[in-house]
Formats: sequence, structure tokens, C-alpha cells
Amino acid sequence: MFDVSLPGPILGIDPGLSRCGYGAIRREGSSLRAIACGVIRTPPTDELPQRLAALHVELEALVAELRPSAVAVERVLFQVNARTAISVGQASGLALTVAARAGVPVAHYSPNEVKLAVAGHGGADKAQVADMVARLLTLSQIPGPPDAADALALAICHAGTGRVRAAVGVADVGPTPVRSFERAVAAALARDGAR
Amino acid sequence: MFDVSLPGPILGIDPGLSRCGYGAIRREGSSLRAIACGVIRTPPTDELPQRLAALHVELEALVAELRPSAVAVERVLFQVNARTAISVGQASGLALTVAARAGVPVAHYSPNEVKLAVAGHGGADKAQVADMVARLLTLSQIPGPPDAADALALAICHAGTGRVRAAVGVADVGPTPVRSFERAVAAALARDGAR
Repeated sequence: MFDVSLPGPILGIDPGLSRCGYGAIRREGSSLRAIACGVIRTPPTDELPQRLAALHVELEALVAELRPSAVAVERVLFQVNARTAISVGQASGLALTVAARAGVPVAHYSPNEVKLAVAGHGGADKAQVADMVARLLTLSQIPGPPDAADALALAICHAGTGRVRAAVGVADVGPTPVRSFERAVAAALARDGAR
Repeated sequence: MFDVSLPGPILGIDPGLSRCGYGAIRREGSSLRAIACGVIRTPPTDELPQRLAALHVELEALVAELRPSAVAVERVLFQVNARTAISVGQASGLALTVAARAGVPVAHYSPNEVKLAVAGHGGADKAQVADMVARLLTLSQIPGPPDAADALALAICHAGTGRVRAAVGVADVGPTPVRSFERAVAAALARDGAR
């Protein structure tokens, strides 16, 4: 059932120092399938350099293992306070660095872009997004922890917007991702309607 | 004149994405000597992941070449705006990660701690700090660019506060750094008085 001509999966990363969510999806025909998700944690009791080094090691291993064709990282918002911004900046910087050094194209999406792509409106709450993630990936239950679901949502968002971004040279994730994505959304909604 | 029992140099890093200053110093008897300083630049026209990857490559090369016994990184302040905080966080996170993965102890100093250690008061301006950096390192002229001078100041600050930090297990930079530092300051001020 696998199309071996398909590129590597799309890896979503929801950066954070205490909890860094990741989720990888692959396109299979008109469907999207989750192939990995989880959370990288670093103990707040450790020193900051050791925590960052541990996160860096894990992210490198993740990219080496999954060999993604694209990495989608949550864009850090500017309305958070500066202290949080520094910490998220440190974690997101590592994700971007690991992807770039592995030669993997990186795309950035704001939380609102992700909500819009996954749940259809930018004002969707976390539960609605997580529910749509489960439907789009045909999962029997909502994936967790929440940071892992957020990372899967980022990857789904990229699957849907990949073609547009490819057109402007940011990332190429396949021949017709938008149409595939639209079909996956339609299929998921049809399944939902049939429940 | 070299004491081969001396550990590697102290490497100061003033993190930034557009300009990341670095400066390495070594203790020679009661003096401090600059052994390297400069600025790593990444072009603002490049994509962020590529800029971070380039900075990461340069920082790794710097640590591999200099083999520092300690890295002193400027502590990011919380009063800067969130946008700047993210960018500085990304750059400082890379510096901390590179040091930690190389097994080098990292110390953090706020700009005021550096000013206090180098110029004797926390309200010193940049020119006063740069002037003291030149005197303490017996340089014939003020080192530049400014980010490089700031990085040297960080390293000097660490040389002075190393013993205290070693006592609390943060970093060990030699047997009697505070006394050496005080001698270096006194010698520099004496030279200044004799001009």
C-alpha cells in the first residue's frame, strides 16, 4: 500500500524546553497517516545548557531516524512575555538548526494558521483541533499528550499548505498536496458525518 | 612563559543572530591575555534556519579550535521586547548547546555584572567597558568590533568571578582566579596611572 516514490514524512515540531512536541505524518494516497508522535521533555531541575544539549540530541536523533522531507515548526508569537519568548526561542532555534543542518526545508506556521488549516477556523480551541487531528489521521482516539497533538496539527497544516509554499520556494512536499489534503479533510468530515 | 598546567582559555560569547561576538582570554601569571576575538555574522537576507545553522557551525568550530575550559555567555535580559528576545534566545541557546555538548561548563552573566567586574561599577557605559578591556588585556588599542569587546568583557568577568562560581560548582577556571584577577586589575590601573 506504500508508494515508495513518496518523499519522507512531514515532521511537526511544537518547540518548548520543558516539553517539545513532535509528530510525523505521511501521505498515503488521499489520506494522511500518523507515523510517530510524542514529547521530548527536559527536567527543569537540570541546568539550562544541559537541558538544551539534551533537547538537541533528541531532535537530531528524531530527524536522523524519520528523515523528514519537511519540518513544520510553530512560529513563536510576539505577544508572549519576554521570559517565555527567550525559552521558546532557544528551543525553536534548536529545531530550526537541526533541520537546516540536515538539509531539510523548514516551514513556519502561527497557531492561528494551524487552527485554520486543521479545524477550519482560526478561533478553534485546543480540543477542537485535537479532535480534527484524530479525524484527519483516522486515529481511534485523540493523540496525546497535548504537545504531541499540536505537533501533528502542524504537520497536517504543512501537508495542506505545502503546495502553496513550494510555489514560493519554501518547501516541496509532493506533487498535489493541497488537493490530497482537501480530499483527506472531505473524507474525514464524511466519516464524521456517518458516525 | 606559558604554564602548561593552565586549563584552556575562557571563551566569552555575546549572543546575537546578526552579530555574535566572541572573545577568548587566558591567564598568564597574574595577567590576562586575549588570544582570540571577533564577530560571527549571518546575513539578514538568508532564511532563519540557514542563519542559525551557519551560526551553529561557526560556534562548534570555535569551541573545537579553542578548547575552552569555560564559556561565559551574556544572560539575556527580560526588559527587551519579545521579538528581540526570541532572536537573542535562539542565538544564546545555540551557544549554550554547543558548550554543553562539548562538555564545557557554562556561566551566565548579566550586562550589569560584566560592567561591575570589568569597569568597577554597573553603570559603566560601553566605551568605559571597552577601555577597561583594553587595559586589563594590555592591548594597545580598544578591541573591536563592539560585540567582540563585549565578549572579551564577559570572559574577563568570568576570570574574576570564577573562583566564587567554582565554589558553588558552576565552573572551575583555575586555582585562584579572584586573586589573579584582582592583581590584573591593580596592575592595569597602575599602568593607567603611570601613563
